[in-house]
Amino acid sequence: MNQELNEHVAQLVNDCLPGNSIDCVILGYENQQLKILLLQWKNKDVWSLPGGFILKDEDIDQAAHRILEERTGLKSIFLNQFYTFGSRERSQMNGVIQAKRTQEMLRELEIDNPSFVHWIQGRFITTGYFALTDIRKTHPQPDFLSEKCEWKALDDLPELILDHGQIIEKALEHLRIQLNYLPIGLSLLPEKFTMQDIQKLYEALLQKKLERSNFQRKMLSLGIFIRLEKQLTGAANKAPYLYCFDKVKYNKLVSKGIGFSY
Amino acid sequence: MNQELNEHVAQLVNDCLPGNSIDCVILGYENQQLKILLLQWKNKDVWSLPGGFILKDEDIDQAAHRILEERTGLKSIFLNQFYTFGSRERSQMNGVIQAKRTQEMLRELEIDNPSFVHWIQGRFITTGYFALTDIRKTHPQPDFLSEKCEWKALDDLPELILDHGQIIEKALEHLRIQLNYLPIGLSLLPEKFTMQDIQKLYEALLQKKLERSNFQRKMLSLGIFIRLEKQLTGAANKAPYLYCFDKVKYNKLVSKGIGFSY
Repeated sequence: MNQELNEHVAQLVNDCLPGNSIDCVILGYENQQLKILLLQWKNKDVWSLPGGFILKDEDIDQAAHRILEERTGLKSIFLNQFYTFGSRERSQMNGVIQAKRTQEMLRELEIDNPSFVHWIQGRFITTGYFALTDIRKTHPQPDFLSEKCEWKALDDLPELILDHGQIIEKALEHLRIQLNYLPIGLSLLPEKFTMQDIQKLYEALLQKKLERSNFQRKMLSLGIFIRLEKQLTGAANKAPYLYCFDKVKYNKLVSKGIGFSY
Repeated sequence: MNQELNEHVAQLVNDCLPGNSIDCVILGYENQQLKILLLQWKNKDVWSLPGGFILKDEDIDQAAHRILEERTGLKSIFLNQFYTFGSRERSQMNGVIQAKRTQEMLRELEIDNPSFVHWIQGRFITTGYFALTDIRKTHPQPDFLSEKCEWKALDDLPELILDHGQIIEKALEHLRIQLNYLPIGLSLLPEKFTMQDIQKLYEALLQKKLERSNFQRKMLSLGIFIRLEKQLTGAANKAPYLYCFDKVKYNKLVSKGIGFSY
């Protein structure tokens, strides 16, 4: 029997609210790919979002930050609540397979605390939080429950537990709506980038090809970019300009919102 | 002892998830005022949002619809989840006053079921749902817990329980963000309206005066209106045009989103 683990789960039942959890969707962008931060369970080929439970005397926003830090090592991340998942079947997303898997995992992990087994098999409503982060500035570390904590490409995800696939889909949907009224990119792109770089980011977020000149015209009309030198390439006359964000104007647009302002 | 009430609360503890609730923010528009549907507690001068608890075998979206219907009589309302409120202090919004009031209310209502008293005094995380409705098409009816179920002007609200004032504020904030990317008005305005009518609606939502010609130009650029006859007034040459929504184009814009489409 794993002493540390059994103490941990006994504490969860004692200290946490029953039936409520938090899951974090942490997105980043690297090598022209959207990536998400996932945990691999110890000795298992299944992955999950960094998630956990809410302490009885803790605000849910605080819980989200604590859980993310405890499970991945990530601190001071700007987390945004985006949706609460309360489908009756969410713990049984793959029907009996899921319930069976929970039992199997409890057995394999040698967790035999009866109150915890009862607690964890109950119904949980989970609140999703999401963040956009600069992958290069993060140093993810798995917690003692996990084998790995890694950035995984969104278009090539491993097998996920419960409804975590759906939670990720909903976070992306939320983000695509935000593209309508917020500038995005400051935390995802390198400091200097070309218009093609930002177009590729938007294409990855929207999952569709965009028309180049139309996209650039709209982007530049936001007035949040500073044009820098040309990117060094072999053919100087065709070299694209580099840009960086004008952070003051960018943040002003974040608070004001793009577009249809009355 | 009120038999019906004590049976009801015993059933709640038995049938519902602990620690989770739902609150509905139902907005309407009448006489150039935004209004919200509230319940007055029986024999008390306090009001609340229509809210309730989630059955153990019920999706939270289903719960929201059932609760709204049970508490107000409103059916087939298009409810949208907007936020989950999980502050540790939300049940004690006015500090001890709130905790004392709950105890007082339980005493006055002669509720003495000890499991319920324990259950209701615990911490609840509540998920907010909101809807925009046509007041003239609703026939609100108070449930057996309530004295009244009425539309109240948003700028003249009665005293509300718990953090219900904050929940309303958050719903309005959500709605103001939606104005950036969705058309609004179909369920709030009468079938025929002038540009001034819709401007007054937006002014009520945004809580600020808008410049007339700029507003009209932006509105008409959405291409969702059909121009009808002039409104009958004494001075025919100054009479404003009446409009109605082109429902096909309106709904297309709802799914596509206004503005910065890439």
